[in-house]
Amino acid sequence: MIDSIKVVAFDADDTLWENEPLFREAERTWAGILKDYGTLEELSARLFEVEKANMEDYGFGAKAFTLSLIETALKVTGGNLTAAQTAGILAAGRSILHNPAKPLPGVAETLAALREHYPLVLLTKGDLLDQEHKIERSGLAPYFSRIFVVSNKSDREYRRLLHDLSVAPDAFLMVGNSFKSDIRPVLEMGGWGIHIPFHVLWELERTEEYDHERLFRVSRFSDIARCLLP
Amino acid sequence: MIDSIKVVAFDADDTLWENEPLFREAERTWAGILKDYGTLEELSARLFEVEKANMEDYGFGAKAFTLSLIETALKVTGGNLTAAQTAGILAAGRSILHNPAKPLPGVAETLAALREHYPLVLLTKGDLLDQEHKIERSGLAPYFSRIFVVSNKSDREYRRLLHDLSVAPDAFLMVGNSFKSDIRPVLEMGGWGIHIPFHVLWELERTEEYDHERLFRVSRFSDIARCLLP
Repeated sequence: MIDSIKVVAFDADDTLWENEPLFREAERTWAGILKDYGTLEELSARLFEVEKANMEDYGFGAKAFTLSLIETALKVTGGNLTAAQTAGILAAGRSILHNPAKPLPGVAETLAALREHYPLVLLTKGDLLDQEHKIERSGLAPYFSRIFVVSNKSDREYRRLLHDLSVAPDAFLMVGNSFKSDIRPVLEMGGWGIHIPFHVLWELERTEEYDHERLFRVSRFSDIARCLLP
Repeated sequence: MIDSIKVVAFDADDTLWENEPLFREAERTWAGILKDYGTLEELSARLFEVEKANMEDYGFGAKAFTLSLIETALKVTGGNLTAAQTAGILAAGRSILHNPAKPLPGVAETLAALREHYPLVLLTKGDLLDQEHKIERSGLAPYFSRIFVVSNKSDREYRRLLHDLSVAPDAFLMVGNSFKSDIRPVLEMGGWGIHIPFHVLWELERTEEYDHERLFRVSRFSDIARCLLP
């Protein structure tokens, strides 16, 4: 238990419920539609380049992803993308928006125990409406005193969050699966992190990981309680 | 001047800068691409049906609009949409994201005068990242003490806003171009409204308008000062 912690914040996608697998499933469907133009690996590499180039305009989320799937399909087919293929890609992208957001094992019980000791905050990035839908479907909203949907998770957004919450960096702990988005900026700011890797990680979230005196690593959500409860 | 007002909130798109004309321009480009399948009016009617059906999944904003443009194109062409047409629609949709968000006449000066008397708040709906980009490009962010991007502007969002701001309904005034999104919910809640119609209004924002004792109507942004300054 860390005495200085006043607020515990949680990432949502792939921390509280699974999300990235739905993107990967849509990507496999898309690659199947385009199978005459390359392997899943080859097509995914092209997609990743398009996604990176579109990040400034489109940002994160399922709608951005769907538009990048269509743009990449236009590129790889060299002007031969058929209407049926476009329709298939549109449907694959839309399926991501129907994520049931079922809480991962141990999540609800652990949040219920933690909220007796700390105000809990949710911090998620992506499509505003899609994130709101998932939070609602998950049934987890009542555990959180504040919910923030942001367009990115960089130093800037964390500083604004701490300002909004009137909390000092060393009183703030972030729990999440992405070292790049959930852990590194918080450690660099002087805060604490609990990293719970998820079995699927998006290419753009890959980063070098390191040990830190204010970082804990756990493999199951329920293990958070051991770090944070007396 | 209304004595009870403690916070003045502003809509952004088509209140502080023009926005809807960029959507209509993209729609004209799209209808031009599909000119073999109907007039602008006929195609727009089909698009509107698709947009309404997609609202629950996609919400508001340029990315949602682009996906609906593609879906409608697939429908009206009956499976004959070409890759070149799809690419043209994707480009038309993307152009909306490059809105320079140049403040409308009188906006900057009026905000500068008002902020000496009231905390000003910005309340906008749409794509989170796109709205953030427009706020940044407009140069108007420094005039606002708080900025909120929401997925919709219904009773629920206004109640949450007033709770976040710790302000009573009769101390809250909203300025905006959409009677449906900016004025009606605020009046119904017990707040005040200043309606500034914009020359272009999206079909889905159309609603019956009415007079009200807590509603002012102005035709120019600078006229707000006459309602709110001593």
